[in-house]
Amino acid sequence: MITLYSMPSSGNSYKVRLLLAHLNVPYNHVAVEYDGDSTLTRTDDFLTKNPAGKVPTVEFDNGECLSESNAILHYFGEGTRFVPQDRLTRARMYQWMFFEQNFHESTVAVRSAVYVYPQREMDRSPERLAALLDAGHKALDIMEAQLSNGPYLAGGSLSLADICLYGYTHSAENGGFDISSRKGIVQWINRVREEPGHVTLDWLPQPTF
Amino acid sequence: MITLYSMPSSGNSYKVRLLLAHLNVPYNHVAVEYDGDSTLTRTDDFLTKNPAGKVPTVEFDNGECLSESNAILHYFGEGTRFVPQDRLTRARMYQWMFFEQNFHESTVAVRSAVYVYPQREMDRSPERLAALLDAGHKALDIMEAQLSNGPYLAGGSLSLADICLYGYTHSAENGGFDISSRKGIVQWINRVREEPGHVTLDWLPQPTF
Repeated sequence: MITLYSMPSSGNSYKVRLLLAHLNVPYNHVAVEYDGDSTLTRTDDFLTKNPAGKVPTVEFDNGECLSESNAILHYFGEGTRFVPQDRLTRARMYQWMFFEQNFHESTVAVRSAVYVYPQREMDRSPERLAALLDAGHKALDIMEAQLSNGPYLAGGSLSLADICLYGYTHSAENGGFDISSRKGIVQWINRVREEPGHVTLDWLPQPTF
Repeated sequence: MITLYSMPSSGNSYKVRLLLAHLNVPYNHVAVEYDGDSTLTRTDDFLTKNPAGKVPTVEFDNGECLSESNAILHYFGEGTRFVPQDRLTRARMYQWMFFEQNFHESTVAVRSAVYVYPQREMDRSPERLAALLDAGHKALDIMEAQLSNGPYLAGGSLSLADICLYGYTHSAENGGFDISSRKGIVQWINRVREEPGHVTLDWLPQPTF
């Protein structure tokens, strides 16, 4: 059985747990929270599993490891209903997943983390919070442009792109972002969480809409 | 024939041009430089092609578009020799590509951009430059750990991961990063540029080692 090292409160870790739940893939879970046990990721043993010292990281029975949340989604999602069959739609799925790691995670997720984790208090300067709010709303607007015109990010059914971007979007109110006025995103959040097999990120306040 | 909107001096754009050269895929090139013509990406017409207003963006004959440099690499690379056949090695390729967009591009590429583009002079505060240098060297150390043990990032031959990370790594000295002491990276850079079909990023100073 695989071992998943993941952080209960993190969107990057949650999206992996969400896909594994949809696929009924069993795993041993090693929870690594931001404080306390987080020093696990700095041990020599863990750094051989992931030199970046980050979770989520998956360890296979033979000791091989894989990290980067979206690469783990790719690994387990390949060949399932969560990866579109059409070539261009499949590339669009990756487009959204790279957008997430480059633009959405660095704004929406970071501003939420600054509020959620007491250890990040030093990052709460007004200038930084304002810049993150502005950039994060731009990222959300790009999602809204797609989701006000179609039910999912790539193609006509739930794909890895939705599982990926749901991670930090559904909890973005924790970072002070305005989700409720973006109707396409609100409907999409409800659509994703009504999908059979869905599991919630229990460690954070859930959306109120 | 496809149209590629790309920025001559950008690593994100260059990696797409590099893959298309290796694959002998012809394209119409619309050059969008950081100043001057860069306002093209803010026009309503371009924003229908890519709501994020960024290049590289590919436009197909039927008007469909695809953006995010690594998603474009995925689209054209799928089924070619640049995507490993083995499932886990293929996932490792994506691991490096997501690492690139999340950690490497936001440090190595950003610090280079701050120096290369006069418009970014306001971002040259000593604190910011020091933080980017430290984080960028960490990203390069993670690459070095892999490349001091194997010839390529994922598997035994050139893959999309190498084309992707070559973009901003080979020119990282422009951002003040120490490449020459990282012998695995130096040898890998030489290996990538000696690959038949290689094209250079002519708009920036090339590595001196």
